[in-house]
Order: sequence, then C-alpha cells, then structure tokens
Amino acid sequence: MSGNAFGHLFRFTTFGESHGPAIGCVVDGVPSLIPLTEADIQVWLDKRKPGQNRFTTQRQEADEVRILSGVFQGLTTGTPIGLLIENTDQRSKDYGEIKDSFRPGHADWVYQQKYGIRDYRGGGRSSARETALRVAAGAVARKVLHALAPQLSIRGAMVQMGPHRIDRAAWDWSKTEANPFWCPDATAAAAWEGYLDGIRKAGSSIGGVVEVVASGVPVGLGAPVYDKLDADLAKAMMSINAVKGVEIGAGFEAAILTGEDNADEMRMGNDGQVKFLSNRAGGILGGISTGQDVVVRLAVKPTSSILTPKKSIDIHGNEVDVSTKGRHDPCVAIRAVPVAEAMMAITLADHLLRFRAQSGGF
Amino acid sequence: MSGNAFGHLFRFTTFGESHGPAIGCVVDGVPSLIPLTEADIQVWLDKRKPGQNRFTTQRQEADEVRILSGVFQGLTTGTPIGLLIENTDQRSKDYGEIKDSFRPGHADWVYQQKYGIRDYRGGGRSSARETALRVAAGAVARKVLHALAPQLSIRGAMVQMGPHRIDRAAWDWSKTEANPFWCPDATAAAAWEGYLDGIRKAGSSIGGVVEVVASGVPVGLGAPVYDKLDADLAKAMMSINAVKGVEIGAGFEAAILTGEDNADEMRMGNDGQVKFLSNRAGGILGGISTGQDVVVRLAVKPTSSILTPKKSIDIHGNEVDVSTKGRHDPCVAIRAVPVAEAMMAITLADHLLRFRAQSGGF
Amino acid sequence: MSGNAFGHLFRFTTFGESHGPAIGCVVDGVPSLIPLTEADIQVWLDKRKPGQNRFTTQRQEADEVRILSGVFQGLTTGTPIGLLIENTDQRSKDYGEIKDSFRPGHADWVYQQKYGIRDYRGGGRSSARETALRVAAGAVARKVLHALAPQLSIRGAMVQMGPHRIDRAAWDWSKTEANPFWCPDATAAAAWEGYLDGIRKAGSSIGGVVEVVASGVPVGLGAPVYDKLDADLAKAMMSINAVKGVEIGAGFEAAILTGEDNADEMRMGNDGQVKFLSNRAGGILGGISTGQDVVVRLAVKPTSSILTPKKSIDIHGNEVDVSTKGRHDPCVAIRAVPVAEAMMAITLADHLLRFRAQSGGF
Amino acid sequence: MSGNAFGHLFRFTTFGESHGPAIGCVVDGVPSLIPLTEADIQVWLDKRKPGQNRFTTQRQEADEVRILSGVFQGLTTGTPIGLLIENTDQRSKDYGEIKDSFRPGHADWVYQQKYGIRDYRGGGRSSARETALRVAAGAVARKVLHALAPQLSIRGAMVQMGPHRIDRAAWDWSKTEANPFWCPDATAAAAWEGYLDGIRKAGSSIGGVVEVVASGVPVGLGAPVYDKLDADLAKAMMSINAVKGVEIGAGFEAAILTGEDNADEMRMGNDGQVKFLSNRAGGILGGISTGQDVVVRLAVKPTSSILTPKKSIDIHGNEVDVSTKGRHDPCVAIRAVPVAEAMMAITLADHLLRFRAQSGGF
Repeated sequence: MSGNAFGHLFRFTTFGESHGPAIGCVVDGVPSLIPLTEADIQVWLDKRKPGQNRFTTQRQEADEVRILSGVFQGLTTGTPIGLLIENTDQRSKDYGEIKDSFRPGHADWVYQQKYGIRDYRGGGRSSARETALRVAAGAVARKVLHALAPQLSIRGAMVQMGPHRIDRAAWDWSKTEANPFWCPDATAAAAWEGYLDGIRKAGSSIGGVVEVVASGVPVGLGAPVYDKLDADLAKAMMSINAVKGVEIGAGFEAAILTGEDNADEMRMGNDGQVKFLSNRAGGILGGISTGQDVVVRLAVKPTSSILTPKKSIDIHGNEVDVSTKGRHDPCVAIRAVPVAEAMMAITLADHLLRFRAQSGGF
Repeated sequence: MSGNAFGHLFRFTTFGESHGPAIGCVVDGVPSLIPLTEADIQVWLDKRKPGQNRFTTQRQEADEVRILSGVFQGLTTGTPIGLLIENTDQRSKDYGEIKDSFRPGHADWVYQQKYGIRDYRGGGRSSARETALRVAAGAVARKVLHALAPQLSIRGAMVQMGPHRIDRAAWDWSKTEANPFWCPDATAAAAWEGYLDGIRKAGSSIGGVVEVVASGVPVGLGAPVYDKLDADLAKAMMSINAVKGVEIGAGFEAAILTGEDNADEMRMGNDGQVKFLSNRAGGILGGISTGQDVVVRLAVKPTSSILTPKKSIDIHGNEVDVSTKGRHDPCVAIRAVPVAEAMMAITLADHLLRFRAQSGGF
Repeated sequence: MSGNAFGHLFRFTTFGESHGPAIGCVVDGVPSLIPLTEADIQVWLDKRKPGQNRFTTQRQEADEVRILSGVFQGLTTGTPIGLLIENTDQRSKDYGEIKDSFRPGHADWVYQQKYGIRDYRGGGRSSARETALRVAAGAVARKVLHALAPQLSIRGAMVQMGPHRIDRAAWDWSKTEANPFWCPDATAAAAWEGYLDGIRKAGSSIGGVVEVVASGVPVGLGAPVYDKLDADLAKAMMSINAVKGVEIGAGFEAAILTGEDNADEMRMGNDGQVKFLSNRAGGILGGISTGQDVVVRLAVKPTSSILTPKKSIDIHGNEVDVSTKGRHDPCVAIRAVPVAEAMMAITLADHLLRFRAQSGGF
Repeated sequence: MSGNAFGHLFRFTTFGESHGPAIGCVVDGVPSLIPLTEADIQVWLDKRKPGQNRFTTQRQEADEVRILSGVFQGLTTGTPIGLLIENTDQRSKDYGEIKDSFRPGHADWVYQQKYGIRDYRGGGRSSARETALRVAAGAVARKVLHALAPQLSIRGAMVQMGPHRIDRAAWDWSKTEANPFWCPDATAAAAWEGYLDGIRKAGSSIGGVVEVVASGVPVGLGAPVYDKLDADLAKAMMSINAVKGVEIGAGFEAAILTGEDNADEMRMGNDGQVKFLSNRAGGILGGISTGQDVVVRLAVKPTSSILTPKKSIDIHGNEVDVSTKGRHDPCVAIRAVPVAEAMMAITLADHLLRFRAQSGGF
C-alpha cells in the first residue's frame, strides 16, 4: 500500500536509498525449476550501469547483485528470491549543499512536505538508483518468460532526443548496441552525439522518447477492464523516474485518425494463423494482447540537475537559487531504456502467470 | 486479480455486460458519515448518458442508479455501497450479424481467443457501457473528496478533435457545458460541430484528446515508487476504453525541452505559501502531488464501429468484410470526458485515504 | 481494504445489510466455460435458509438468487459474476427497541464507536444475513472445483451441541441430511432435539462445534509462509459470525501429544501412491495440502439474542437492561454448517487457481 | 500472491532459507518520524533466539539485524525498511541424511510435490528460522503502535505444556521472564522443568498452548466482514509453524456456554467510560475491538524431529524409517511465544493504520 511493490502474481518489492548501505528487493511468485544465476541478472545490470560513457552520470557503482534466497542448485525453488546490491560509491559530500535547499523539478520539496523528513543524500528513495532493482527483477522476469513463452523477446530503443527524431525507415535493431544511446538509426545516433556533447558541456540537460517492443507475446494476456495489459504497462512506465507520458501503438497519433485509418484489418495467413495487416493498436485490443508486437513509447523529461541556477526556496522558507554541480545525466532518457525494458518484462511475466491461473476452459 | 476492481483504500468492483439484465458495482472503503443520495450519483450519470445529441450513440438508456446498501438515513455507514443500474435498451437484434464475425479494432477476437466464449451482444463486457459504473463510483469519490478536501475540484474538457486543437488562450471553463463536446473554446466548438457532422454522415469516426484538471489537490498525495500518483493516473486513464496515450503536465512536449525550460521554479508567495512559477510537471513531482493543478491528457482513438466495410475474419476462419450498422459514436472522445473526470476523482480519493493512513508524524 | 472481499484469484466482494432492499456480491476470477445456472446456486442457498424448522430463526426469506452477469448461454465467460438476492422479510418493527440500546455480545456498540453511525435494523451489516452471499459464492466455487478437481468433495457436520458431543465411532455422513442439525450421529441427533427444545422454550441459546471435511484435495495447495492453506482456512472460518475458535486436524489436542504420537507416518500404497497412516495433521503440512482429508473444526458461540434481560447501556450512556424478543436462533452453530462448507470451497478454489499460476516446472 | 507477505497497510515481505547466506524482510507502510534503531529490533530477536537454555534447539545464531534502509538520523522516513540477518550457524552436514528422505510430520514431502525441488538443508523455507523475521517486523510494529497508541502493550505466555496447564489464579506476568518457558505460573514452571527434561532426554517432543494478550487496544480496530480483527489474528497465528488451532477469548469453551453465560454485560464506569463486566469475547465483537484485552490462544504441535524412528518414504518411493539426530526443540511452543507476540503486534499495527484511513466522520 506504500507503493514499493509492483505486480500481482509476479511481484517484487524494493527497498533502499541512494546513499544507504545497500538496496535490494524481493521477487516473489517465480515458479520453481527455472534456471537462474547471478550472472543472468548481472548482464542486465551492466547494461544499465551509469558511468560507462560521457553521456551518463559519472557515478561509479559496481552494482554487483547477490542472490540471497529462492535458488537452490541453480534452479528457482518457488520461494521468494532476495536480491541485494551494496552501495559502493556514495559521495555524500556532493549533496551537502542541497541538504536544506529544494532543487526545482526534483522530489525534494514534496518528500519534505509529505513525510516531514527526507534522506537528502543523492535523492534518497527518489533517486534513479532504485531502478537498478527494476532491472534486476526484470532479469528474473525474463527468465520466467523464457521458460513459459520462449519465443518472446523484449527490446528497447531511444527514438527521439530532444527535438531530434530517428528516421523510422532506418530502424535497425542491431544498431542499438553500437552507440551510447540505444539508437536504432545509426545516422541519427551520430548526429545525437554532437548534439548531446553540447548539452553536456553547457551543464544543461534534454528530454527524449523511448520505445519498447515485445515480440512473440502470446495472445490473450491482460485482464479486460481495470488491469488491461496497456493500463498496467502505462502504470509500469509512468512509475519510472522522469517519465511524463506513455503511448501504446499509434498513441496520440490515433487522436487524429479516422476509424477507417485506425482499424487494423485481419486476414488468414497461409499458416492458418490470423494475420493483422497493420498494428496501430500496438498489439493490444480491449486490454488484451493480440499476438502482434506490443509497442510502448514513453516521454522522458530532462533532468532538473543542471548548472544554471534556478529559483527555489530552502527549508526555512527563504528564497534561494539552486544549481547542481554534482555528477548528473545530460539525457536521462538513455538510462531509461533498460529500465523500460525491464518493466515490460515484469508486466508481461505477471500477466502470463495470471493467464495460467484464470483463462481457461476445461 | 481478474481486473474488475480499481483502487486500494477507495476500491470499487464492477460487473455486468452491455446486454445482461443489469450492471452494477460495489464501492468499498468509503468512510462513514458522508452525505450520499442517489441524486448525488444520478447527476453525473446524466452528464455521461449517451443519446443526448446527435454526436453520441443513439442508444437510449435510462441509467437510473439505485443505492442498495451502505447508506442509512442519508449518510454513509462505512459499509460497502452497492450500486445497480438496470439495462433497459438492449436491442440485441442490432448485433446479430457480429455474432460470428470479429470487428477489426474491437475486442471481439481477443475475447474469443482468451476465454473461448464471448457475450457478443453489444460488446458484452468490453462495451463502453461499463463506464457508467466508473461515473457512478466517481460520484461517490467526489463526495469523499468533498468531505476530506472541500477545496478540491475536478473538471474535464476536450482539447482536440481529430487534427483540430483548441486555442488554449481561449480556454474558458464555463464554455464546456455550453456545447456538446465539453470544449472550453467556443470558437473551436462551433467549428467542430460542422466537422463532426461530416464524419457522422459518412458513417465514419474520429479520435480526440481529453484533458482533466484537478485543482486544490492537497500536497503529498502519491506513494513514491510504484504507486506514484501519476502512475496510478496513467493506469486509471489507460483503462478507459479506446484510450491509447496518457500525458501528465507537459507530457511528450517535455521530451524536447531542456532542463532549464522544464523546471518549475519556486518562490514564496505573499501568503507565506510556496508558489510555483510554472506547472510543466502537471502538479506531480517524484510521484507526489505538489498542490498545483494536476493535469492529465488522454488520447482517444476513433471507434472501429464504422459503416465502411473492413477486412476481417469470422469464427470459422473465413475471411469476411465487416461494417457496423448499429448505433455508434462518431467521436467517442466526447463521452470519455466524464469518465476521465470520474477516474481522476477515484484515484485522488484513493490516495487521499492512503495519505491519512500512512503519511504522518507524531 | 475495508474487508468486504475474500480470496485472491477466486475473489468475491459482498454488499448489503439485513434490512436494505437487497444484498449481493461480485464473484471474480472464475475461469471461462464452466457450466453455471441459478439453480446451481439456489440449491445451496436453500440448504442454508432459515425458518425451515423450529430450531432456526423464523425469519422467512425467499433468498432467490439472480445471476446478473458473467454467464452466457449457461457457461461462465471469465467476466465477473454479479449475484443479487432481494430482501423480502424485513420486519423492521421487531428491531425498533434496540435502535438506541446496545445488545451485550452483539456488534451494536462497536459499530457505533467505529463509524459513529449504524444501521440498527436487524444488525445491519453485522447480520448473519450476509452469510447467504458466502453460500452463493461457495456454490460458484464448487463449480470451479468440480471443473478443475472433479474428485473433490466438501461436507460439513455439527459434532457438538453445547456440552453434548457426537460419538465419532457412529459417524455416518448419510445422516447429516436426516436431522435438523447436520449431525452425523443419529443417536446424538435425537438427544439434541430434546435438549435444544428446552433451550429454545427458555428463550435461551447454546453454542456448538462444526466440522468441515474436504476429501480429494489435490496435493500441493497452499502457499508456504503467510498464505498457508490452514492460515487462510483459519481466517475464512473465523470471519464467520459467532465463530470463536478454529482447529486443523488434531487441533488443540495436538498440544498434549508427543512427537511420536503426533507424526503421521507414510508408506507406499499398493497403487504406487504415498499413503499416510493417520491424519492428525488434518491434511495440511507446512501450510500445503497433503492429499489427505482437510479437516477443520470451528467453535460457534451462542447467540446473544436471548429473552433474559442482560445489563447494558444505551446510546446516551444510560444503564439499561436488554433482552431480545425478535426471532432468533437457539443454536446458530446449525446455520454455520453450510456457511463453513462454503468458506472451505472458496478457500480451496482460490488456492487451486493459485496453484495453476505458480507451482510448476517446465 | 505467493504468500510471503503479511498485512495491508503495515505490510512486510520476507525471504530467505535456513541455510542460505542470509534472511531478510522489507517492512513497508511505516509512517515517517518514528524513532527506530537496530537495538529496538535486536532486543526482541534476542528474546526469541534459540540456544539460550537446554529447552530450545542448540543452534547458535547471532541473529544480528541490520537496518538497510528507511531510517535516517534515527527516524523512519516513510520509505520501506529493509532488514537483513546473516545466517552464521549452518551446519549443513547435520541434514545430509534427510536429503532424500521425507521426515514424517514435516513439510519435506509436500514441498517436493508442489515445487519439484526443495532446499532440504534445515528445512529451507519451511524452517522456523523464518520466524526471526516476524519478530524483527514485530519490533517495528511495536514502535508504530507505541507512536500511535502509547498505552497499548502486548504480552505472551505459555499456558499449557503437553497435558499440564497453568493455574490461572496464579497468573503473574512478572514470572514470564523468570523461567525458560514464558510461564506466568511459577509453580507450574518448576514442574514443567522436570517434565520437559524427561521429554528432552528421551529425544521426544511435546506440544503446548500459548496465550497472547494485548491490553490498551483502541476501540474500533477491525474491518467488519472478512477482515475481522479476529479473522486476521487467526490467520496470523495459524501461519506460525506448528500451530494447529487458534482461539479468541472463551474460544472452544464458548461452544458449551449458554447465551446467558456467554454475553459480556456492559455498565458505565465511574470515569464515564463503558465498562464490560467480563471478557468472554476476548476483546472483539463483530470483528471489531471493544477496548478490552484482546486475548488469543494457539495450540502448538510437538515437533516431528524426534529420535524414535518413524515410518516414511524416500524420494525414490522406497519405504524407510526416519529419525532426526540434529539439534531440535523438545517443545517448540516455547519459541512460539515471542513469535505470536510479534504477529499480534503486526496485526494490530496494520488495523490501526487502516482505522486511520477509513473510519471517520467529519
């Protein structure tokens, strides 16, 4: 009820602040007999890890995950999986100056208002550090998906940096690992590099748009009214730090379409399977997966940690100007890509387990 | 777990199909001693009711709500409130022809795949008829909000019809009740009338964008990680039929902003209260309400019930062409306005009760 | 969160007061394609219905259930099942005198304290009338169990009335339908008849013990720590009005046993199946069903609605004497039998659906 | 849904096996600004710790708890509290011989059946080791209770060892800390010592009955139908390892009482407060606390880890005889006392937070 857990049958609960001794989570609901090792999780954490190039915060976290329970002899046992990541790079001194001042655009002020106290070091609980646990839980979700729906794959990309969009005709998934932006358009990626260098050197920041695509999703995932698959995905994505908008399929473009242009027509394929002729629905109709690619886009705002001083107040009610001199991300949308992938994996794993329980026929 | 309930402390569970004997819901978690009558609910149902002008489906439902429990001598008792609405206008004959054919863009086919059975009459459970219950529960939520946060108000508007946007400078809330579109820009509303007549006469349909604004929201609502206020609003809105995108505050525009342009600066007001100089955050930071207007926008796709035949298949796997001759909405976004208002009320009521339980200090 | 729902995957939510227009519930999570008619539910309601002999309250309720949704052409559709029972026999005049006085041993006073208001007519929400909905939901649960585990059966019996216990050696299930007490021991039943007539004529009441046995329960139901099958059964049974104690298997007798006497030894049966040599565990080990009979006993207190005046207070803080002259049950344990059976069915159905989702191996 | 969490608003989720690297839990929903240190938790863990006298298992665990999050400068911050206890004394060799054999009366066999795998070392997840986390979470719950209801106290006692009951007239709370059994009757405690020595030396075990009393509970806790305070307590207590029965107040004795004898009469006290003349209800009416002592008793079975060989089977289906030579408890009821106290604290804290949210009036 305090909102530190996500999912119903595949459910994980996280804890930990940016500058405490450790962060961790409990992943519950994983069926037994699924192979799982620390390396299965570490590979995704490494993808997310900041400080790997000049375009993400230079905070250096080892982010080594330990499995504390729920796995025996390399297999899940059906019991809860405890995961722990020690915090190693906690330069608290960087944050001393925001102890009493509220950074505009951050959660500092509302935490203080809501709770009457806040761990100001590195943003505490509101820090993006928490997303490491989403990635870890997402790695476990991928193993569940692999066991139950081996054909399913989840891939994320950055499709817009500030005003600069990719050319969708140039989309090539193999490029996403070849540039620091998870950008599927090599030409755009090259242009973004110079653009973001300018932002970075100015101590400024910029927003972006991330797209996550799940292919091979079984037909029938999603509960039809309030737990629609798209509703749960919207919540999953909007819960990621800095996200301000979520679209499924055509998204906001659907608002300008007519019924004729928007409907995805159906035919029978040569393989005897139903074939959709387009995918404006983004793989979800009536809240239920259609078997087409599930396509989600999220708008990520620029981080408010910038060098330019901005008007704010302090804890005593004085008007102050605040600028952030610590390490920060010129474009946090980059780091949102593996996190959004993880949230997709978690949401699908949850609905896949729900599907096993409830849809049926005998 | 089957997704027919929403909310945690303020929680409602709905049941009923478009063409069954009745639809209804249980609203649970309402504190005691709040004044509540059937008229308090009916007024909002009447706002939503279709068939009131030529721009919504001509289905004629009385939509008379009965309170079956939870209210005694005009006051809530703290026990669950049962609400019932009889279905009166069930012209099942209109739907006979889609008994075996799947309308492209509808949930018909996925329901059949997921459940192996579907109530095809009027869309069954996937019908927008279910949204009457959201409006009814929303009316109860408004009473809870009124008791706990009397200054809070929730208003919705349609801000875009197809490609035609309102002029935001012309926004006038008093206009939303003066045209059939809940449009706050009188000039736009006039233009939309002719535009939508064309769509309607052609048996076509068009999408739209709805905006809901909650003013007077107390600071501190929202749980910081997975149950962020914006995450719960995203789920609430995306669960509404035909919604394909959700934005908070600047939304997708935030992706093109720099950190300098995006941050909402703070000053101290003359009244000793913190004052934000802008509201790109849409009233929510770090998942917690700031006290500014909470602003949500949703993209609504055009209904797929159109006269033009579209390619589809039938239940036997034959390729067929499907068109919808029954009553339908040329722009379902219109009817989404009171539903989105209701979901806003419900989400805020839920978080207000959560706030009472958990935030604090002694 | 207000406690008007039970179960997780098989989940039902009830509403309604003793003297409102109707009571009802939503049964959610029922898989599709399960045959279900109103008659399937009515048969169990008729078993529970009061007023069928002189040993239960003479309130006459038709208790006719209507299925409002979730069933199409005789089969469940996977959507929520709305059930409604009109209240027909609401002699409110009987209850006028307790409007301002609190009956000792009833919930009157605590409701007034907790909510500041109460529907005093017939006990309102705290009335045993609510248990009709448990029986209705239990009937649906039985259909789910029948579809998923056809060999499973659930039977209840009354094994003690006041100080008078049955002779367990005389246990004969066929007798439970042959006397007004669901008593499996015909000799005891005959003796109880005279005993209870005395209680009834004196305007007094007496407690009793109910036992419910589920046979054919699949191995493996129950989640190992907090949602142990026995923990969920304990909650289910203790939630029934007037229940003050719950035992599994040997129950409180286990406290006086040694480890040697308590352990249920195992051998291999001729059929290649594991065979337990005793069942002191009551069919549950470590919170998980063993395949043996699941055996639960519940202690039911005597109703406090008695003729003898008892010391109490009124709403103004005056000391008064209260006696109940309205219709009442001399031994409410009798009516608890079908309710306890229903709660067993519901709990098992819930865990059976959970088992489908989460236990496994690939 | 996998049952590793308990509570709704005060909610904790545990993980960890007896012989993994560590066990831990996340305590969520704790309001902010409550003082909390590791010492506040350690004191209760030390009470529970085995190996402190010859009557509990000689396993030696340091059971040192670390707070990993949710506390800043000695105060709770409203964010989840992560707790970790390293496993230090894991003599896996003691358990090698039960790797392939199922101990009768243990969860070994059902885990293997349910999950197809089990961590056999020390009982894995089904080990009583998990109860250390309940005690830790219970310590946090006590701090919440202390902040919200300072007058509330929770005390547990053992009231029966095997067939030997205490003399209730000799009840003296101060004695519970003066003997190894938490026995409130000094004479009984002395007798039990010799009795249990006999059991222990014989390598046998014996059951017992534990009673937990909460005094100073505010009126009005408990949700009236399915989440009755007694129902939630029944679940809480029955979820403790080895518990086979739960009673509230008069419990099973209520079955033999008449309505006249069972009703707790009410008068006005000199202080203007309502006074009950007896407490057969155990402080709960209609599922709601009355302000009297909340009294719960639980029956604890003898551990099945005994020296005497008992008939069983092994993983290959062979019939074998199993005896347990490792460290074990002659009377596990002793160690259940602090665990039951903790579950009482947790259940009350949860309902106290729920009360803040939902009961009310304006």
